Amino acid sequence: MSMPMSKRMGAELIGTFWLVLGGCGSAVLAASFPIGIGLVGVSMAFGLTVLTMAFAIGHISGCHLNPAVSLGLVVGGRFPLKDLVPYVIAQVVGAILAAGVIYLIASGKAGFELSNGLASNGYGEHSPGQYSLGAGFVSEVVMTAMFILIIMGATDSRAPAGFAPIAIGLALTLIHLVSIPVTNTSVNPARSTGPALFVGGWALHQLWLFWVAPLIGSVIGGALYRGLFRTP
Amino acid sequence: MSMPMSKRMGAELIGTFWLVLGGCGSAVLAASFPIGIGLVGVSMAFGLTVLTMAFAIGHISGCHLNPAVSLGLVVGGRFPLKDLVPYVIAQVVGAILAAGVIYLIASGKAGFELSNGLASNGYGEHSPGQYSLGAGFVSEVVMTAMFILIIMGATDSRAPAGFAPIAIGLALTLIHLVSIPVTNTSVNPARSTGPALFVGGWALHQLWLFWVAPLIGSVIGGALYRGLFRTP
Amino acid sequence: MSMPMSKRMGAELIGTFWLVLGGCGSAVLAASFPIGIGLVGVSMAFGLTVLTMAFAIGHISGCHLNPAVSLGLVVGGRFPLKDLVPYVIAQVVGAILAAGVIYLIASGKAGFELSNGLASNGYGEHSPGQYSLGAGFVSEVVMTAMFILIIMGATDSRAPAGFAPIAIGLALTLIHLVSIPVTNTSVNPARSTGPALFVGGWALHQLWLFWVAPLIGSVIGGALYRGLFRTP
Amino acid sequence: MSMPMSKRMGAELIGTFWLVLGGCGSAVLAASFPIGIGLVGVSMAFGLTVLTMAFAIGHISGCHLNPAVSLGLVVGGRFPLKDLVPYVIAQVVGAILAAGVIYLIASGKAGFELSNGLASNGYGEHSPGQYSLGAGFVSEVVMTAMFILIIMGATDSRAPAGFAPIAIGLALTLIHLVSIPVTNTSVNPARSTGPALFVGGWALHQLWLFWVAPLIGSVIGGALYRGLFRTP
Repeated sequence: MSMPMSKRMGAELIGTFWLVLGGCGSAVLAASFPIGIGLVGVSMAFGLTVLTMAFAIGHISGCHLNPAVSLGLVVGGRFPLKDLVPYVIAQVVGAILAAGVIYLIASGKAGFELSNGLASNGYGEHSPGQYSLGAGFVSEVVMTAMFILIIMGATDSRAPAGFAPIAIGLALTLIHLVSIPVTNTSVNPARSTGPALFVGGWALHQLWLFWVAPLIGSVIGGALYRGLFRTP
Repeated sequence: MSMPMSKRMGAELIGTFWLVLGGCGSAVLAASFPIGIGLVGVSMAFGLTVLTMAFAIGHISGCHLNPAVSLGLVVGGRFPLKDLVPYVIAQVVGAILAAGVIYLIASGKAGFELSNGLASNGYGEHSPGQYSLGAGFVSEVVMTAMFILIIMGATDSRAPAGFAPIAIGLALTLIHLVSIPVTNTSVNPARSTGPALFVGGWALHQLWLFWVAPLIGSVIGGALYRGLFRTP
Repeated sequence: MSMPMSKRMGAELIGTFWLVLGGCGSAVLAASFPIGIGLVGVSMAFGLTVLTMAFAIGHISGCHLNPAVSLGLVVGGRFPLKDLVPYVIAQVVGAILAAGVIYLIASGKAGFELSNGLASNGYGEHSPGQYSLGAGFVSEVVMTAMFILIIMGATDSRAPAGFAPIAIGLALTLIHLVSIPVTNTSVNPARSTGPALFVGGWALHQLWLFWVAPLIGSVIGGALYRGLFRTP
Repeated sequence: MSMPMSKRMGAELIGTFWLVLGGCGSAVLAASFPIGIGLVGVSMAFGLTVLTMAFAIGHISGCHLNPAVSLGLVVGGRFPLKDLVPYVIAQVVGAILAAGVIYLIASGKAGFELSNGLASNGYGEHSPGQYSLGAGFVSEVVMTAMFILIIMGATDSRAPAGFAPIAIGLALTLIHLVSIPVTNTSVNPARSTGPALFVGGWALHQLWLFWVAPLIGSVIGGALYRGLFRTP
């Protein structure tokens, strides 16, 4: 962590770019294709973005790629509060750039319509399965809290060294396996912001939930692990 | 293992909450969705709950998340009998809480009916594939026995260190790939109890099998590994 | 490897039991089920049987679970010829027992017909995709040769320690992803023998190919790695 | 890396043979089969070829299996320029041999037509999803750049030792999950060349893109990692 902040921000930007390009990109380009990857493939893709980047840039920035992760680690006592804002800025910029690249590729096919979304998150009539705002809120809070708890545990000095990228990446896969039908799965405000800025309208109007709920969840997860399980 | 029992029980409760939320939640919310995850995705989800939690809380409680695992490890000589009851209590409470959260989210969609189950386990007319009680019993006994044997082997001091969460989690995925059509796959009495308490009726009437068969299997698996393969 | 042969045979028997129960069992019980696991799930299942057992009993017997693997390792200079026959006997017995358990479970569903096979291997009209004997022969030889080469490499002292079960298990998944339509994928004479004995008829008549081709492939793979890549 | 070049070329040839046999072979033989593996299975297959070979021959040749990887590592300062040409030759030969074996097996089924391709890469009317040349170009450049960046990062001395094959293999799976509909996914000129030589016609006419774009991407990826993240 003696890396200069500029390099760490570069890593977070590139990593979050990859998370959104790989995760949302797979949903936009390949989920509904004939013999396409479906929700299993999208879930794998989101998880593998984190697994691969955690091995690739974990040693540079810690590979958060997610404002909720950065905040959760602050609450958990693992990340300095003063570094939170630069990390979040880099993450959001990376997510926006990725949404742009997805748009660039997706619009290279005749008949593409942006109004179908870029894997934006939503609730109520914009939930993939028409789940209510309340259901979406509970899902995002609980899933983010458990995600942070797993991150805190898998990177604990008492856990086996080197395996954290596998545990954390596959936790994100698992979260998507469960909750895509509910909100299209965020647990990551940056991931939600990128596509919403391009889609506008309903996606922007509902964006608040995908900042508020994951951040609440991250505080719960970070506090829970720290309170219950920290080394005495 | 010098952790106080209260913290270990907290870890088992949270971990089993995650097992049921992720495994049964994926089945309830995402298995039959259009381009949904199907039985492959549900199998992956169950396994990943264990893989992720074993990295996150293995160093706190050993991450059993399953009364059959705790009993099997007692029989295998790896876990003290006096700790069995507190572990099982924490596991069952975690499973019930998770079933409640799944219910809370799932009922946020118009048309949800609890009578369709919460991924409850069953046999005969409540087996997903209409398998008989006898077939379900054999499946649960054999699958649990092999699960315990793999747990004993992968955590043996002669096995490569650090990899046990991968081996054990993916063993649970494998077990689900084979046996969901038979009983909806339990091999875990706590996992069966949570949904059954919410669904009631047939799920409660058939719950006995998903305590008896996994516990018999766990004794067989623990004894088999201990008898055949323990260090001389 | 100072384990007595009786324990090593016990490990090979149990491990091959698991390979056939998990791999062929997933194919028989879950592949064609509604929202079932399909050939992706069957491929995952076969690979995960080896991955999980290699972590569980690798330190007991080396976890071959396959006469072609044992022979390939003899040719590759990693396994003593005198241990070959006892290993193969244990493997075949384990495979037969597993086919029996699959039959026991599968026949617990009304309408089960053994004539549909127990995931037996075949060519020509018994190839899942109607591939010719020649295509099946080439596929089995090449796939087995590459499997042995990967096993030799991943267990080489110069490869990263501890990861071999992942490499080898996922190699078997990969082999199934490619070649199930051709022969239902054997690369393992024991795996072919168990179901064939129960199904009889065509499965027994075609069984020769699934001994000859994998064993030829294993000799090629073992010799190739030894000749090209052994430590000078 | 003190291995003689002949052995390293042998390893690259065998490894690239496996990449094309496993990846393109799964697409040709199993993707569209009833209950077939679909694009999820093909994506898994491509990634697993690299994961398995990186464990098997990483200690022999570094396991590039891809001219874009070799070039990216030259730019990234990890691989000597003088070794580039022999590596690329071995990779292309391996890919051609694999396309021949796929042809041999696939033609063993009545009704096989080579004009359906051997999982060749294409754009425009030969893109699986009818994506334009521009979309294909962007996709191949960006995906290859990120692939090289992940390879550079996961093999950095500061990353956890031994895990690179998992990170790199699963990165290739992820890239396929996203981009098969766009170009059938190359990011590897050797992989594109093998099938194109057999299919001829349009596949050869469009082959230039799958050399130019991946090589541009590899230079970007190698330079990006080296510029931003190299050890001071």
